[in-house]
Amino acid sequence: MIQRIHHINFIVRDLVSAIPAWERLLDRKVVSRDRLDARGVDVARFDLGQTWIILVQPTRPDTIPAAHLKRHGEGFFLMSLETDSLQEEVDRLGDGMFDGPARDGLEDWRVRDVSVAQMFGAQTQLVESDGS
Amino acid sequence: MIQRIHHINFIVRDLVSAIPAWERLLDRKVVSRDRLDARGVDVARFDLGQTWIILVQPTRPDTIPAAHLKRHGEGFFLMSLETDSLQEEVDRLGDGMFDGPARDGLEDWRVRDVSVAQMFGAQTQLVESDGS
Repeated sequence: MIQRIHHINFIVRDLVSAIPAWERLLDRKVVSRDRLDARGVDVARFDLGQTWIILVQPTRPDTIPAAHLKRHGEGFFLMSLETDSLQEEVDRLGDGMFDGPARDGLEDWRVRDVSVAQMFGAQTQLVESDGS
Repeated sequence: MIQRIHHINFIVRDLVSAIPAWERLLDRKVVSRDRLDARGVDVARFDLGQTWIILVQPTRPDTIPAAHLKRHGEGFFLMSLETDSLQEEVDRLGDGMFDGPARDGLEDWRVRDVSVAQMFGAQTQLVESDGS
């Protein structure tokens, strides 16, 4: 079952510049900063209670986030929808509804990208996590 | 105070085509469909508990949503952050942090768009509502 919006990612060129603007808008501090080597990004997370807002800075050119930044510029990157069972959703929706295999996100997050073409341009993703 | 993500808008060319794909992904039905004449859009809303996901179809060319569709294609349009007092946030952030004046959204929502340029390309908005 799709539970809620787990996180929303915004791509930025430079976390150091973008973080103060987001801290001011959201009126709260970044909760954590992490590096996700497999994805080629540095990230900064804000806690909005039910949903994380995550700023994503590509760290090398040969990655999906870097390609997105190059093509679309800074701004929205993807919306991640939480499910209690990624496998159940894949069974329900069919393998063809997804772009690529499941992969690891931050923490214990296990994510799988939904086909953008089938969602009318919307970049979405499903995520299963252990409550984080 | 910024409370949560109140809604997220995705622009589509045609609600009739996009709604079934979103109903399938989210595993739930559209809650309501509305027309917002002042904004030049037809919309369809999904209820994700704490957050609305809203599909937005421009209905005439001379509007901001139509210009966004023309320039960027279908996909993410904006993220709306709920506050209990829009005026307090404007006082806190300063008038220069916003693009244009406050305007009416769906229901009793009163919204004001945050400057995209100052948010590193992220299209955000503040919203005050009476609990809807």
